[in-house]
Amino acid sequence: MPSKSRQTLKLRRIAIDTFRENVAYMHRDCEAYRAEGFQALAKIEIGAGRKRILAVLNVVDNGAIIAPDELGLSEQAFEQLGLKEGRAVRVAHAEPPASLAAVHRKIAGEVLSDQEFLELARDIADNRYSKMEMAAFLVSCSHSGLTREEVLSLTHAMVATGERLDWGEPLVADKHCIGGIPGNRTSMLLVPIVAAHGMLIPKTSSRAITSPAGTADTMELLAEVDLNPARLHRIVRQHRGCLAWGGTARLAPVDDILISVERPLSMDSPGQMVASILAKKVAAGSTHLLIDIPVGPTAKVRRMQDAVALRKLFEYVGDRMGLHTEVIITDGAQPVGRGIGPHFELRDVMQVLENDPAAPQDLRQKALRLAGRILEFDPDIRGGQGYAVARDILDSGRALEKMKAIVSAQGAASRSYPPGRLCKKVCAPRSGYVSAIDNLRMAHLARLAGAPMDKGAGVDLNKKLGERVSKGELLYSIHAEFPSDFRFAVALAEKDSGFWIGSDPPRQSNGLVV
Amino acid sequence: MPSKSRQTLKLRRIAIDTFRENVAYMHRDCEAYRAEGFQALAKIEIGAGRKRILAVLNVVDNGAIIAPDELGLSEQAFEQLGLKEGRAVRVAHAEPPASLAAVHRKIAGEVLSDQEFLELARDIADNRYSKMEMAAFLVSCSHSGLTREEVLSLTHAMVATGERLDWGEPLVADKHCIGGIPGNRTSMLLVPIVAAHGMLIPKTSSRAITSPAGTADTMELLAEVDLNPARLHRIVRQHRGCLAWGGTARLAPVDDILISVERPLSMDSPGQMVASILAKKVAAGSTHLLIDIPVGPTAKVRRMQDAVALRKLFEYVGDRMGLHTEVIITDGAQPVGRGIGPHFELRDVMQVLENDPAAPQDLRQKALRLAGRILEFDPDIRGGQGYAVARDILDSGRALEKMKAIVSAQGAASRSYPPGRLCKKVCAPRSGYVSAIDNLRMAHLARLAGAPMDKGAGVDLNKKLGERVSKGELLYSIHAEFPSDFRFAVALAEKDSGFWIGSDPPRQSNGLVV
Repeated sequence: MPSKSRQTLKLRRIAIDTFRENVAYMHRDCEAYRAEGFQALAKIEIGAGRKRILAVLNVVDNGAIIAPDELGLSEQAFEQLGLKEGRAVRVAHAEPPASLAAVHRKIAGEVLSDQEFLELARDIADNRYSKMEMAAFLVSCSHSGLTREEVLSLTHAMVATGERLDWGEPLVADKHCIGGIPGNRTSMLLVPIVAAHGMLIPKTSSRAITSPAGTADTMELLAEVDLNPARLHRIVRQHRGCLAWGGTARLAPVDDILISVERPLSMDSPGQMVASILAKKVAAGSTHLLIDIPVGPTAKVRRMQDAVALRKLFEYVGDRMGLHTEVIITDGAQPVGRGIGPHFELRDVMQVLENDPAAPQDLRQKALRLAGRILEFDPDIRGGQGYAVARDILDSGRALEKMKAIVSAQGAASRSYPPGRLCKKVCAPRSGYVSAIDNLRMAHLARLAGAPMDKGAGVDLNKKLGERVSKGELLYSIHAEFPSDFRFAVALAEKDSGFWIGSDPPRQSNGLVV
Repeated sequence: MPSKSRQTLKLRRIAIDTFRENVAYMHRDCEAYRAEGFQALAKIEIGAGRKRILAVLNVVDNGAIIAPDELGLSEQAFEQLGLKEGRAVRVAHAEPPASLAAVHRKIAGEVLSDQEFLELARDIADNRYSKMEMAAFLVSCSHSGLTREEVLSLTHAMVATGERLDWGEPLVADKHCIGGIPGNRTSMLLVPIVAAHGMLIPKTSSRAITSPAGTADTMELLAEVDLNPARLHRIVRQHRGCLAWGGTARLAPVDDILISVERPLSMDSPGQMVASILAKKVAAGSTHLLIDIPVGPTAKVRRMQDAVALRKLFEYVGDRMGLHTEVIITDGAQPVGRGIGPHFELRDVMQVLENDPAAPQDLRQKALRLAGRILEFDPDIRGGQGYAVARDILDSGRALEKMKAIVSAQGAASRSYPPGRLCKKVCAPRSGYVSAIDNLRMAHLARLAGAPMDKGAGVDLNKKLGERVSKGELLYSIHAEFPSDFRFAVALAEKDSGFWIGSDPPRQSNGLVV
């Protein structure tokens, strides 16, 4: 129900960063506040002329923060309104965004149309949704699920409401892993391999949010990763690839906004995940995409049938978005490589690139298989030959050379990070075979030890699945920089090491790419 | 995943009212902010010794609001933590509240236990839930619905996590209407009638949130309604009743917190409504409760079968909460009485109390029937005699006398409020019978005209359902104080008056109490 304030207030920028939620500040003695019967956290509309934004109201009792004749806006809200300080603005009770009706239909279990998803995405992109309205939308989608047509509609809507890159080339390759496996730093290997072949692979990655390291966290031990768009483009043109942080572009912004609600709620529905990943890739200008779905008892996807259903959903939506999408289901039974945490993961990556005989073979094999599949996007590479081409590039040192070129172009890091100085050795309580390693537990240990903030913190594995161990033999070591972190991690490892030692060797993981 | 800051910050109270959401403020240059990798809107835990609270983080770029070595808390958060300014506190990433696991189970469609609801309610009462986490809970309940056992668990949990009044008498009567019908001011009639009989009826009411007037908004034209608990008790003891605003007590606080999310989301699921109403009444010390469910094409409940299902849910939960609950299903086809908005509704109420022949008979009849049902809670009143007793009390002037005593005890208002000076007459476009009146439309018109903020604003009905009208005859008038409100309301009425004029008299509403 609209109502209009009878007086104007002077606009003021308040230097408070409220991230993706618009907040307005009014003094408790403000005439408009009293007249309108607002209450704190009410959603209000702030406008002047045709410009108007929605914001959640905070009521201020301190004239130094805001005067009674002023209307304050948090930083992003101020920018979104786009008016100068001191400008007269009016306030009113906000109407709920029109597309909220669609959310209520979704809560009631109905299927939404392309048009409804588009209007929803527009309202979200314009910050018309409060966090709780977004939570309502996400829960309703998660609950009754999205049909594959709805996932496609949502993907379209996310792409349509953001910017879109165009690399001007017919083949722009990309790779994405749905996550959950510590140490899985294949991007840092396959990007140099694929770029060395000459295929365009402008890879941007995220930082770790809940994991002990993201590709961006690890790469920044070698080089700058926060590159402006112009520089990123120059590097990609010259070197055919990059390994940058993807946080700054306005690609599929609705996805970032929804993730800011999804993550604290630990909501992770397949439909939203597929829409989110594919929308980002389409917006980033990718034409060919390889998706990695690790499956295992402590991976995100735990049953083969779920992985296959997810694969089909990726294929269905990818095809219709004009993105050539291939999905590879991999072994997610244990961490990849030996290191967990930026320093240790970088060590593994460099050992593979340098063809060090001590390099972890599972990481090398997985990276080669993924790189091989990407290389086969090239019409000139015969089906089945990708792996051999990738291996030649790696073995010949051309991948290492390409990595060095990319590092130098992005700007080599000025210092190195040694392993954390505090170290605890975790040893086998009995003799036998390593029959299980818990991904979640190992990731948690590395996080507690300080990764990814402390670059040298993490876990260094000495044994992997199926290996024989004697009682007292080293399973892994925990490294930390700070005593309090160290104590927490050690206490957790003592409660449960995350390793199971069985009497017999475990059965082979069946049919999955290592 | 917990992580602990390595330094302490000085606690500071920030004079910002963020209502039911805890907000913490940190300067962008704060060491802890940088070290912990927080981001704006992350949920953090603030603690010292054993005291700890959760809050959403806002990042500040202005040293005048917060210094880099300080940790600011919004007003309610500061009070909740209960420490002095300047005290050293630590910050850490917050673990999600433990009961969020139950929310995820509910999202997955499972049934929650008594214990799970209790833990949920405790976490919510302790402000451990963010708005979006509450939205997730509410949507999950609304979506798959709550079993009646779950509604009972939720009611128990809401009562257990708040204060509880005890009047020390075996019969404490109360009445509640689920709302949606403009002009339905029966409480202001039945409280004096019931109290005049000697039955205890300590009635507290809400202010209008989305309606053009609540009982508290209307009552405050006569008397003070914001009474402290001690004064309220004194008045009730002496006069057997009161008509106060119920906003200040800590009764079933979880309900208030959930409503602050439910309302902006326009979520109104039957299970939550029943739990919410019954928890408040049990906490308020009521022993006998009459629930009014109006049914009609533009009421909250539109079909008789839904009203009956709701009645059974009220009975099931009420019985098990030890609250004697009777439900009456009433005619919600049109507004009750003639006036909509505080001034006009008070006029109707006073006409009935004063036995004015011009008094609206539907309001009188409905109030007498409800009062009669409540009077029959008294074992000394023979079944079926309540109505006659109520009518005697009203007709004899004892109800008016009791109302005057209550007004004087609460503190008589110092001024009166005339009808809004701007007036628009809305007339019949053709001759015929009033065949429908839209409750929602009439409420919206009165809101636009300025009700309940402007006490004299609203709608005054001249014709009711079934009455014969001639072309050009007055249907109702709109009153407002301010020209802009007036224009909006008139424009809406011109688009759609909310009245349907048919050729034939409408059929009788069947079997419902008028």
